[in-house]
Amino acid sequence: MKKLYGVLGNPIEHSLSPLIHNDAFKRNGIEGDYLPFLVEEDALEKAVNGLKAIGAGGFNITVPFKESVIPYMDALDPFAKEVGAVNTAVIKDGVITGYNTDGPGFVKSLAPLIDYQFSGKKVLVIGGGGAARGIYCAMAKTEAGRVDIANRTLSAAHKIVSDCHNGKPSDVLSLADAEKSLSKYDIIIQTTSVGLSSLDESPISLLGIKEKTVVCDIIYNPLKTKFLREAEDNGAIIQTGVDMFVHQAALAFELWTGISPDCERMRELVLEKLGG
Amino acid sequence: MKKLYGVLGNPIEHSLSPLIHNDAFKRNGIEGDYLPFLVEEDALEKAVNGLKAIGAGGFNITVPFKESVIPYMDALDPFAKEVGAVNTAVIKDGVITGYNTDGPGFVKSLAPLIDYQFSGKKVLVIGGGGAARGIYCAMAKTEAGRVDIANRTLSAAHKIVSDCHNGKPSDVLSLADAEKSLSKYDIIIQTTSVGLSSLDESPISLLGIKEKTVVCDIIYNPLKTKFLREAEDNGAIIQTGVDMFVHQAALAFELWTGISPDCERMRELVLEKLGG
Repeated sequence: MKKLYGVLGNPIEHSLSPLIHNDAFKRNGIEGDYLPFLVEEDALEKAVNGLKAIGAGGFNITVPFKESVIPYMDALDPFAKEVGAVNTAVIKDGVITGYNTDGPGFVKSLAPLIDYQFSGKKVLVIGGGGAARGIYCAMAKTEAGRVDIANRTLSAAHKIVSDCHNGKPSDVLSLADAEKSLSKYDIIIQTTSVGLSSLDESPISLLGIKEKTVVCDIIYNPLKTKFLREAEDNGAIIQTGVDMFVHQAALAFELWTGISPDCERMRELVLEKLGG
Repeated sequence: MKKLYGVLGNPIEHSLSPLIHNDAFKRNGIEGDYLPFLVEEDALEKAVNGLKAIGAGGFNITVPFKESVIPYMDALDPFAKEVGAVNTAVIKDGVITGYNTDGPGFVKSLAPLIDYQFSGKKVLVIGGGGAARGIYCAMAKTEAGRVDIANRTLSAAHKIVSDCHNGKPSDVLSLADAEKSLSKYDIIIQTTSVGLSSLDESPISLLGIKEKTVVCDIIYNPLKTKFLREAEDNGAIIQTGVDMFVHQAALAFELWTGISPDCERMRELVLEKLGG
């Protein structure tokens, strides 16, 4: 019997998740249907309980519900608990479990760019929001040498470091201080919304990076943000937000179906849709 | 944005509704997706509220929830209220309204068999359950001369007649008494589950009908019940449950989309699926 999947968010109309998940269901011969669900803030609990009641297989959760959805989960994966954000829910035997595939998805998307060598790498995460939390926590679990956070609000960054206390060396910096020490990083990850739907905004100047720094932005609209263009101009290896998006989706699909979908195919579909 | 539709029931796996509604969405260029939802009895309220919360366009309700779903509707169509059963819910601007298209769907399916001439026709409804209620109430609104009910439990039949008090001449009969007076009816409608998934059960013997009586069964599995075979053997014009099924679906589709779907196409799909 066909199973329902979907994504809860607001806004949600332009989500690319239905496109890639429905294609993956089809290609893997799975009877699944993935829809976008526009949910009002005060209807989130009913939406979650309802999806359980109608026998949905699972769903994604996106902005602005990744944190507020947690109380409605029956169980929480340890990593999602640590991050404090859920982007994937799995419903099995009437039990709904919350996962976070954003952070692990990012790490998976990054790995081929550094030849799967995390060991000793110096990493800077820019931002202090939900995406920064997930990426920081996931990167802190790799063999990276250090993972620092630069943010406008220092307290938010300090909280992330203390919540994910796994002994990884981590400094918290202001954006201005980060700009002065960019040359010491091998990997720089932009996680704020600065640069979203804009061509001339960037949270930080990248003039000071060293050549071959791996610079990532989690934004994929525009595909190449001002941040990434400046990185490229300064000799960086860049990665757009499409790869993290695809890998968080692939991990969610795997949680639901047990099948690893074709990420390259997902990537092509997204790029085609974005007109790039 | 694609809208979700579906049918709540238990069991639900073998419902043919997804087949015909998804085909109608496709043929009419509507972005809709219709899924079967297996719902436990104690989860019905959450299922209904959840479908509203995730912005579904509407849904059907089938056995065993057609009556118990009523408290969860925000509004009730007058006919559904009279019948006391809802098989179709429409969600619009956050308001969920319950309708009954079973009775009107039956009348629509019957009309061509009697050249759209209800006037003066003598009708017998067999049964006293939810389906009998819907069909009785809808037939009592036509120009039929009389609509009688025969049922094993007389009190249930009496209650239907008194609930749908619109002045139509109506007798309540035992099954034995009905058998003796079958020759007076122009139209006989079987609404019980006797004969469902069985080839040798029938609620009543049809030896006494007159030729060209229109005899209908609402069961469509098997397509030709023992009841209908006996009717045919005695010179009746018969109608299987497929036609009512198709017409209740078409009316639901129209409530959701404003579009009258191609009933002949729906009928062909159902017959093909049933292997007939």
